Amino acid sequence: MDRNLAITGVRLTPVLISDPPLLNVQGVHQPYTPRLVVEIDTAGGVTGIGETYGDTTYLELARPYAALLPGHSVADLNGLFTLANQFGVTDECVEDAIDVGGLRGVRTADKLRLSIVSAFEVACLDALGKAYGQPVHALLGGKVRDTVEYSAYLFYRWAEHPGGGERDDWGAAVDPAGIVEQARRFVRDHGFRSFKLKGGVFPPEREIAAVRALAEAFPGHPLRLDPNGGWTATTSLRVAEELKGVLEYLEDPAPGTPAMAEVSAGTDVPLATNMCVTTFAEIREAFMKDAVQVVLSDHHYWGGLRNTRELAAICRTFGVGLSMHSNTHMGVSLAAMTHVAATVPNLDYACDSHYPWQRDDVITARHVFRDGRLTVSDAPGLGVALDREALGRLHRRWLDDDGTMRDRDDAAAMRRAKGYEDWTTPALPRW
Amino acid sequence: MDRNLAITGVRLTPVLISDPPLLNVQGVHQPYTPRLVVEIDTAGGVTGIGETYGDTTYLELARPYAALLPGHSVADLNGLFTLANQFGVTDECVEDAIDVGGLRGVRTADKLRLSIVSAFEVACLDALGKAYGQPVHALLGGKVRDTVEYSAYLFYRWAEHPGGGERDDWGAAVDPAGIVEQARRFVRDHGFRSFKLKGGVFPPEREIAAVRALAEAFPGHPLRLDPNGGWTATTSLRVAEELKGVLEYLEDPAPGTPAMAEVSAGTDVPLATNMCVTTFAEIREAFMKDAVQVVLSDHHYWGGLRNTRELAAICRTFGVGLSMHSNTHMGVSLAAMTHVAATVPNLDYACDSHYPWQRDDVITARHVFRDGRLTVSDAPGLGVALDREALGRLHRRWLDDDGTMRDRDDAAAMRRAKGYEDWTTPALPRW
Repeated sequence: MDRNLAITGVRLTPVLISDPPLLNVQGVHQPYTPRLVVEIDTAGGVTGIGETYGDTTYLELARPYAALLPGHSVADLNGLFTLANQFGVTDECVEDAIDVGGLRGVRTADKLRLSIVSAFEVACLDALGKAYGQPVHALLGGKVRDTVEYSAYLFYRWAEHPGGGERDDWGAAVDPAGIVEQARRFVRDHGFRSFKLKGGVFPPEREIAAVRALAEAFPGHPLRLDPNGGWTATTSLRVAEELKGVLEYLEDPAPGTPAMAEVSAGTDVPLATNMCVTTFAEIREAFMKDAVQVVLSDHHYWGGLRNTRELAAICRTFGVGLSMHSNTHMGVSLAAMTHVAATVPNLDYACDSHYPWQRDDVITARHVFRDGRLTVSDAPGLGVALDREALGRLHRRWLDDDGTMRDRDDAAAMRRAKGYEDWTTPALPRW
Repeated sequence: MDRNLAITGVRLTPVLISDPPLLNVQGVHQPYTPRLVVEIDTAGGVTGIGETYGDTTYLELARPYAALLPGHSVADLNGLFTLANQFGVTDECVEDAIDVGGLRGVRTADKLRLSIVSAFEVACLDALGKAYGQPVHALLGGKVRDTVEYSAYLFYRWAEHPGGGERDDWGAAVDPAGIVEQARRFVRDHGFRSFKLKGGVFPPEREIAAVRALAEAFPGHPLRLDPNGGWTATTSLRVAEELKGVLEYLEDPAPGTPAMAEVSAGTDVPLATNMCVTTFAEIREAFMKDAVQVVLSDHHYWGGLRNTRELAAICRTFGVGLSMHSNTHMGVSLAAMTHVAATVPNLDYACDSHYPWQRDDVITARHVFRDGRLTVSDAPGLGVALDREALGRLHRRWLDDDGTMRDRDDAAAMRRAKGYEDWTTPALPRW
């Protein structure tokens, strides 16, 4: 092993980042959401950065995992998985993980393990790139495009958080006019061409109306609707029939592979998913049944950038489309997403990102979308630098929190709103 | 781009390497077989080496492809495919490729293209590893094992080539006793534990007898039989029934995915292939039909070491086993096979290699099997060095050849034998 590449230390910093009151089938985003920042120091003097979920379950697993790494090489990326497999992620850990995971599909020990490994894999790639003087995309075989397109992620939302919290200047959006207005601002500020509407909030007719309003306001622009499994197969087929020719794809209309397969068999509207195919173990059944036509990869729970490339190869081989799922993330993860997206030939759609909604970040220079695109960095590593002052401030927020925000729970946040005191996570399908 | 990684020159050296009179369903190996050695020089002063098929068709495509590379970075491995796609491999080139390709499955423009790219990819990885001071396995994410197991590749063979050629001291092996004797020498010389018999040469009963003789002589050792699609599904099922519990797997008993699927449905003996799944395009149908349980990867025609890892990910995801196919190769390719094999967690079986049959090589120190295994090199790059004297000598042999040996043609070689003057490549299935 090249001694310079040996890991000498790992720092884990949980942070809370502000998040607007965005609505989904489970409830509403909390005022703050937890993320974990991973730093890996090498003997050669470079430090790599990664980012993943920061909920308590993830932290509790990341800490002992981090302790195993010193002495290993940042080049030994396959070894990260070997280490994680030796490591005790039990079904109990999964049970303890909070239910918002439902928005991201099955909860298995393996997926939890990969969600942790991914942050360390990205940090190792960042360090390795800096050590070699190469951008991360070059470590993945080199970019095949110079920019990566993202979509505008539209949400039904309230003007402010129930029970208080930071307020932004977006105002509420709870009807077609509000969604179109939100879309216009996304176009004005970032130049996005594609729009994704997070659905499952209102009865389908109301969401169909919002999509139609978008189609009218932005003719020819790709549109997507994602109710997070909120509908029955019958409802899904009705929506698909109404919106055929309007939607680029329909994302997770119905919950689970069998229901998605039923929908898929009855419509020509492509179905996308980040709920029924979220692990390698789920691919076989879904592809055999032609349940989905587009997989939305998320490098956090697929296990990193190299696993994302393997997922891309599988999709390519089976004629399934590929795009990228987003979660509430900061600029470290967005950089990682952009690097891997740049290397995948079959990235067929604009990627999703919540990034414009997140005002907090731990990097020194925020990413800037131009014409809805990010330019792929050619600087060594990820091409982002930690803003230690910001990291400290957001970590302080995590330290100061009484525990309310340390685990994302959209249903609990919903219960803080007037009239929703009895809210529980709805059983899916809801409509 | 790091200027040191820029390609400054590419050298292509076709060679002829000696090959014993090994028999297969198509005929017999020629006294010499063509290979192509690729060298890539970088601005930083390192040179990478690769190896692939050397038949005329490959040479004619490799030459203009090589001319495109100067100025590109050896780190831009994805770019090798982009360049190859721009490049004119036509169906005509494929038609011109000689028929021995039939032993390696379909002949498509894409496969021909990948067979060429693979040698350049390996040479780039070798150069990149030398530039970074890292072994090739580390560029593939790191080895997950320190040694790679190979199997003894047993062949029916003649003592000498019809019509003359170099003679070795192995003698003929045309019956069970001869095959067992050959196996004993492989064990004595190299310590192999697994045995693969190339079949399709004699009627199935005779080959079954040879496998039974091996099972008796080497109880508990994994055994495989590969008639290269020489049998009907009915014959295949009969052989599978007779050899169940004896064979580790049966390789390509019947030609084509539908026939393999028929066999697969009727037996519990696992079926392996390097004939019906040899390209990404063939995977879907074969996996959907459960036609094969083991894919034998060959980095030459799958498009290199990174594509081999993607194939491994696909097999892992679909619960299909993985091992490695061999062709008549030298030490550069064996080094490449060993590096990638070391990084694949789901390498479920000992890999095949013709290497012990090949006495000619272009590397300074031949690989040595111990207990049937090769130790994975931790030296920068592939860990092999070119023997320029040997390269020159084997290239001189190619230059001096009147054209007879420059394209491998096992049927033509067969016709040189007394009694086989009218031999033509048999239509498959033969039995």
